[in-house]
Amino acid sequence: MIASPKNIDAVKKYTAVRNHSLAICAPLEIEDYVVQPIVDVSPPKWHLGHTTWFFETFILLPNFPGYTVFDPQYNFVFNSYYETIGARVIRTDRGNLSRPSVSEVYRYRKYVDEQMEIFLQSEHMKQALEPLLELGLNHEQQHQELLLTDIKYILGHNPLFPAYTKEKSPEAEISKASGMIPFSEGIYEIGFQGDGFCFDNELGRHKVFLHDFEIANHPVTNGEYLEFMEAGGYHDFKHWHAEGWDWVKENKAESPLYWHSIDGKWMQYTLYGLQELDLEQTLCHINFYEASAYASWKGMRLPTEAEWEVASDHFNWGNRWEWTGSAYLPYTGFKKEAGAVGEYNGKFMINQMVLRGASEATPSGHSRNTYRNFFHARLQWQFTGIRLAR
Amino acid sequence: MIASPKNIDAVKKYTAVRNHSLAICAPLEIEDYVVQPIVDVSPPKWHLGHTTWFFETFILLPNFPGYTVFDPQYNFVFNSYYETIGARVIRTDRGNLSRPSVSEVYRYRKYVDEQMEIFLQSEHMKQALEPLLELGLNHEQQHQELLLTDIKYILGHNPLFPAYTKEKSPEAEISKASGMIPFSEGIYEIGFQGDGFCFDNELGRHKVFLHDFEIANHPVTNGEYLEFMEAGGYHDFKHWHAEGWDWVKENKAESPLYWHSIDGKWMQYTLYGLQELDLEQTLCHINFYEASAYASWKGMRLPTEAEWEVASDHFNWGNRWEWTGSAYLPYTGFKKEAGAVGEYNGKFMINQMVLRGASEATPSGHSRNTYRNFFHARLQWQFTGIRLAR
Amino acid sequence: MIASPKNIDAVKKYTAVRNHSLAICAPLEIEDYVVQPIVDVSPPKWHLGHTTWFFETFILLPNFPGYTVFDPQYNFVFNSYYETIGARVIRTDRGNLSRPSVSEVYRYRKYVDEQMEIFLQSEHMKQALEPLLELGLNHEQQHQELLLTDIKYILGHNPLFPAYTKEKSPEAEISKASGMIPFSEGIYEIGFQGDGFCFDNELGRHKVFLHDFEIANHPVTNGEYLEFMEAGGYHDFKHWHAEGWDWVKENKAESPLYWHSIDGKWMQYTLYGLQELDLEQTLCHINFYEASAYASWKGMRLPTEAEWEVASDHFNWGNRWEWTGSAYLPYTGFKKEAGAVGEYNGKFMINQMVLRGASEATPSGHSRNTYRNFFHARLQWQFTGIRLAR
Amino acid sequence: MIASPKNIDAVKKYTAVRNHSLAICAPLEIEDYVVQPIVDVSPPKWHLGHTTWFFETFILLPNFPGYTVFDPQYNFVFNSYYETIGARVIRTDRGNLSRPSVSEVYRYRKYVDEQMEIFLQSEHMKQALEPLLELGLNHEQQHQELLLTDIKYILGHNPLFPAYTKEKSPEAEISKASGMIPFSEGIYEIGFQGDGFCFDNELGRHKVFLHDFEIANHPVTNGEYLEFMEAGGYHDFKHWHAEGWDWVKENKAESPLYWHSIDGKWMQYTLYGLQELDLEQTLCHINFYEASAYASWKGMRLPTEAEWEVASDHFNWGNRWEWTGSAYLPYTGFKKEAGAVGEYNGKFMINQMVLRGASEATPSGHSRNTYRNFFHARLQWQFTGIRLAR
Repeated sequence: MIASPKNIDAVKKYTAVRNHSLAICAPLEIEDYVVQPIVDVSPPKWHLGHTTWFFETFILLPNFPGYTVFDPQYNFVFNSYYETIGARVIRTDRGNLSRPSVSEVYRYRKYVDEQMEIFLQSEHMKQALEPLLELGLNHEQQHQELLLTDIKYILGHNPLFPAYTKEKSPEAEISKASGMIPFSEGIYEIGFQGDGFCFDNELGRHKVFLHDFEIANHPVTNGEYLEFMEAGGYHDFKHWHAEGWDWVKENKAESPLYWHSIDGKWMQYTLYGLQELDLEQTLCHINFYEASAYASWKGMRLPTEAEWEVASDHFNWGNRWEWTGSAYLPYTGFKKEAGAVGEYNGKFMINQMVLRGASEATPSGHSRNTYRNFFHARLQWQFTGIRLAR
Repeated sequence: MIASPKNIDAVKKYTAVRNHSLAICAPLEIEDYVVQPIVDVSPPKWHLGHTTWFFETFILLPNFPGYTVFDPQYNFVFNSYYETIGARVIRTDRGNLSRPSVSEVYRYRKYVDEQMEIFLQSEHMKQALEPLLELGLNHEQQHQELLLTDIKYILGHNPLFPAYTKEKSPEAEISKASGMIPFSEGIYEIGFQGDGFCFDNELGRHKVFLHDFEIANHPVTNGEYLEFMEAGGYHDFKHWHAEGWDWVKENKAESPLYWHSIDGKWMQYTLYGLQELDLEQTLCHINFYEASAYASWKGMRLPTEAEWEVASDHFNWGNRWEWTGSAYLPYTGFKKEAGAVGEYNGKFMINQMVLRGASEATPSGHSRNTYRNFFHARLQWQFTGIRLAR
Repeated sequence: MIASPKNIDAVKKYTAVRNHSLAICAPLEIEDYVVQPIVDVSPPKWHLGHTTWFFETFILLPNFPGYTVFDPQYNFVFNSYYETIGARVIRTDRGNLSRPSVSEVYRYRKYVDEQMEIFLQSEHMKQALEPLLELGLNHEQQHQELLLTDIKYILGHNPLFPAYTKEKSPEAEISKASGMIPFSEGIYEIGFQGDGFCFDNELGRHKVFLHDFEIANHPVTNGEYLEFMEAGGYHDFKHWHAEGWDWVKENKAESPLYWHSIDGKWMQYTLYGLQELDLEQTLCHINFYEASAYASWKGMRLPTEAEWEVASDHFNWGNRWEWTGSAYLPYTGFKKEAGAVGEYNGKFMINQMVLRGASEATPSGHSRNTYRNFFHARLQWQFTGIRLAR
Repeated sequence: MIASPKNIDAVKKYTAVRNHSLAICAPLEIEDYVVQPIVDVSPPKWHLGHTTWFFETFILLPNFPGYTVFDPQYNFVFNSYYETIGARVIRTDRGNLSRPSVSEVYRYRKYVDEQMEIFLQSEHMKQALEPLLELGLNHEQQHQELLLTDIKYILGHNPLFPAYTKEKSPEAEISKASGMIPFSEGIYEIGFQGDGFCFDNELGRHKVFLHDFEIANHPVTNGEYLEFMEAGGYHDFKHWHAEGWDWVKENKAESPLYWHSIDGKWMQYTLYGLQELDLEQTLCHINFYEASAYASWKGMRLPTEAEWEVASDHFNWGNRWEWTGSAYLPYTGFKKEAGAVGEYNGKFMINQMVLRGASEATPSGHSRNTYRNFFHARLQWQFTGIRLAR
């Protein structure tokens, strides 16, 4: 069979996305792939295996006749937290598993990739499978961002502060002429429309009524946040949610994640090592409680996700995931898809907050202004920032 | 000084509200006032003291010249969790405090009530204080509902299952002709308006856009919920949020709170003792996870708080607090008031869900269709129920 | 039937012991009977019920034909932590139970006491039951000491610091001529012998070889311990066991239990209220870690329980339970008795340390120099002290 | 300088011991060096670094003029749990540290070994340092045993059950003619004497009085323990300590560690993989609670450490660490040495039980019958067994 150009494109795209995961891991030592310092961080080798397991389980196994799974045990290792051997259950945590080794996981990826390339060019690759392939690739891209955030956490919590890379990545230019952009009240539409890929949680484009609002044309900088700190922001409960204040006290929080006050100078762990804090740079690694307290201190608030989406064409975004004041809930008309893929987003729609935009860790091509990212209010380890509204 | 009729009304209202707290506690043994079986439940004597402390601290102390506090230590006992003696801090939990005794707390109430009656009829009771007085009374009414829910928890978790009352309270009639009420898409207004009292979180009446929706004209009954249970509802993760499913497994949840399967028959602990489950009665004591799973199993969803408020004139409500699908967040234009009273609501606006309506435990006169009640998704101990929407 | 003099003695003894429990509780408010601030402390009403349940369950029920239990549910309330209703289990913690009320527990005691008096004078009271009756009374006496230690904890952790009694109990005279008493190496015998009552763990009198040792003729005073504190004892890990040091850091321990530094002066909560620390008094309420660290700082050690017992005729004891350096383990030839009574002591013989002597809280007649008391190394709430050896 | 023969011997011995650690790790994948599945298990690379740090810190740094530490940060990584950078402290857990990498740790070992070889043959190696050198080597041998127990835990808790080695290690012959060896009462001496090395906790040879006792001439086998299990041993609280019974229930314990019932057959994870259980083999991996419950079920008890030591010439030992009924406490006359080395043993003398003998994992030359090993009663992961006494 001669592959159609379309299929060749699919192979190219598949290969490009899959290779990017390997490129992200290239600077790692084998040991870096294995550890899990906190429950929110997964070992890099787990990310590599889990994304591969997705293609094996949802595409190859049900659709490619004669496909042999690489290792039947991997279903336990790369999916669930429970392992069964005969009648006995062993609980394993991702961070306790030295095996399969990194080289085995790479063999697993190679095996699945080779099979996928054959499959994609075969008659078995029906058009009906395209959305699932698309989902698998977007799933891998989500994990590429998590790979970077998790690697940063692993290296940034090592007392030797090893650098991930020698090169400093250039940061997007911040508008010098900062200010607020006004919008008038009225009915607006939000939610995905068009042809490309989106996640199920973006669907159901719908109308919302917004009152007059203003939104900042730039995200908050390190220098601006330092003013809040120096004004005693971490020591005045007035600006904090009650559970945010509990978080401050329990963790003795005094600054964003990765900031260290060393000999009276603020340093920041970055992917290129421990650096002096740059006051002009965009603030990063704050949680919702901090974002919200800062906004309160400024006499403003965070934008809702609808405000953000409506306004997003009027400012530059993409450097930080921006906390919104919206809880992560289903859009009017949200529908779970049938089967295991239906679990993708809906089951997380409780007690998390929406973030909009993208970050320096987001793979290129994996952002759009309808994208609904979401995390728990206490989490700092993503590349998160603040945009004010009022 | 001759009291103006208005002040006499204030005294009457104050006395009526305050006495109702005592009436709620009348059936209790002294021992029932003291215990705190879980952190969410407060000992009844704490409720009695805390509501009294509110009037002493916010009205009498700053406004009534010459007022002497009943006991300076009560500020620690009835407000905060930390006690200071000289330079040393003792952590005390409400449920560990045998003193002040119940009779001392009653003396405290009597003292403050007498002072309040004098104060309210004195020249010191300025008009500007009326909102604060109103807030204090509404605060007391909120605690009256909590008194009942907490008493039910304390007695209902005692292996002797003592009854709170001998009389069965009549339940509101449930519409026999159950069905869905349709509403058309458009701009609606929600939020409090008018003259009476409301909490700060209801203010900022504003427009919302609602799409077409339908809402049930009756809440779910025990019999309807039992169908969900018998269909395996607590054993199929498909209908649950991920953290709801964790809650089911950790707690081995199988039914609403206070339901006991005894010798093959469903029994329910009620305020008048352990009773056979009445299938016609309105379902009670389910948390948000359960409400949401039930709705999913029925192929429907919970209404948003805006939908509920807009539709509320078209159905009977007031028997159960009804879980909505809305997170508890500030309305557009929400403003914290200055001072300690400003802490009242805003600081809790994260990771809680809104409930609308009222319940059989709500004091009469303490309900309105703009009232925004809120609890954590995992909590069952309020008089909560389900109204479906789609 | 005419009661024999012996039986009249039994009734008298029974009544005297039982009444002492009531005398201990006489100064309490009803609320004081109910709370359980930490897991090691039981609510006083539980002690009153549990000791009663012992006589009902082990003496009356199996030996008194026609005896009717007071309430079949009390078996759950006063024995185990688990309650069964039909097929459903409810976990209850002692401190959550407001019922049975204190007056119900007193009724329970009265009922069982009346039945016991009849029983003791009846033909059913066989000689073979005397050891069990003896055990029941000694069991009650153990709980009388616990009643006092638990009441002290409950009142002493209340921010109002209520006094249990107005009278200061006189403390035993401390020998002014302090010094060390020498003993020569050799074979000694320890363990109970003779006719009276003893617990199973004292039985099996046996030989031990002791090397030369010296033991202090007086227990450590508050003033002596304060020197250790002022020398930085709580801040130098050198004198502490590793897990003792962990205890210091986790609890930020700085002093014995009930000591409070207020405005630069050391105060001590006592049963007659908060008092200035008396430096001449015997040290109280230190745990094994503290006892051991103090001894190390003095260049000495704690005596073994064999040394203590051998030397006990040569010094005054009975004011404090004295921590020994011996783990609580079975004596050579220790035997568990058959049945439920066999559980009495043996099952606790792991990870606890032996204390010897008695304390001001020990009921009179309930002490002997072979008595083996035992507690976990971390516990401070008993009336514990230090006697040095080398 | 020409090295004296004595120094050449020291170098040879040093090199032999140090190389054995590397031999133990030779079969590992790099990933196996990194993980820490439970707090009691350390990552193999930590063992390799920590033992090296001992020589660097206690021998080279204070005694070898001009010695340069390999990396000043290693003091934090391989000693304590706290890291300091400037004024800020980072808590790190051993199992979270991907760096230093395994190859860096090997470089560290090589560097220190080269320096030690030079040092040992130099004039700086005074005779007074020999005990410290001896201690360092014995310390390394202790960690060699821990390396094996920890590697077994890491691989044995991986759902893939990877084998550490292909070869089955031969087990010591078990005496077929099993029986009890009698000893008569009298004064015996225990504790170390002679010229060789011993730990501080073995010193102070002293007299003890032992009553008549009998001790088994062989350790318990798998088959014998299986009888206990099949007789319901894990389901009858009668034979367990109270806290042992809690351990059973909390962990749903049903068998020794590494036993798995698969398709109705007992399998055992061993260093050469998952194998069918050999009933003739010596029982392994039980904790003190299990050892004690088994002995109780057999109507016997565990020997005391004094009995074991006195009897040890009359039976074969060395295959399993044998739990004794003795708590780990200081011998009469125990003295802590001055300085950091004085922390070696004494600070652990609370809440642990003594084990005697040695195991298949003990390095050859690292056992003697006065050796006092000690672990917490709940721990199963050492190569532990049972020898009965009565």
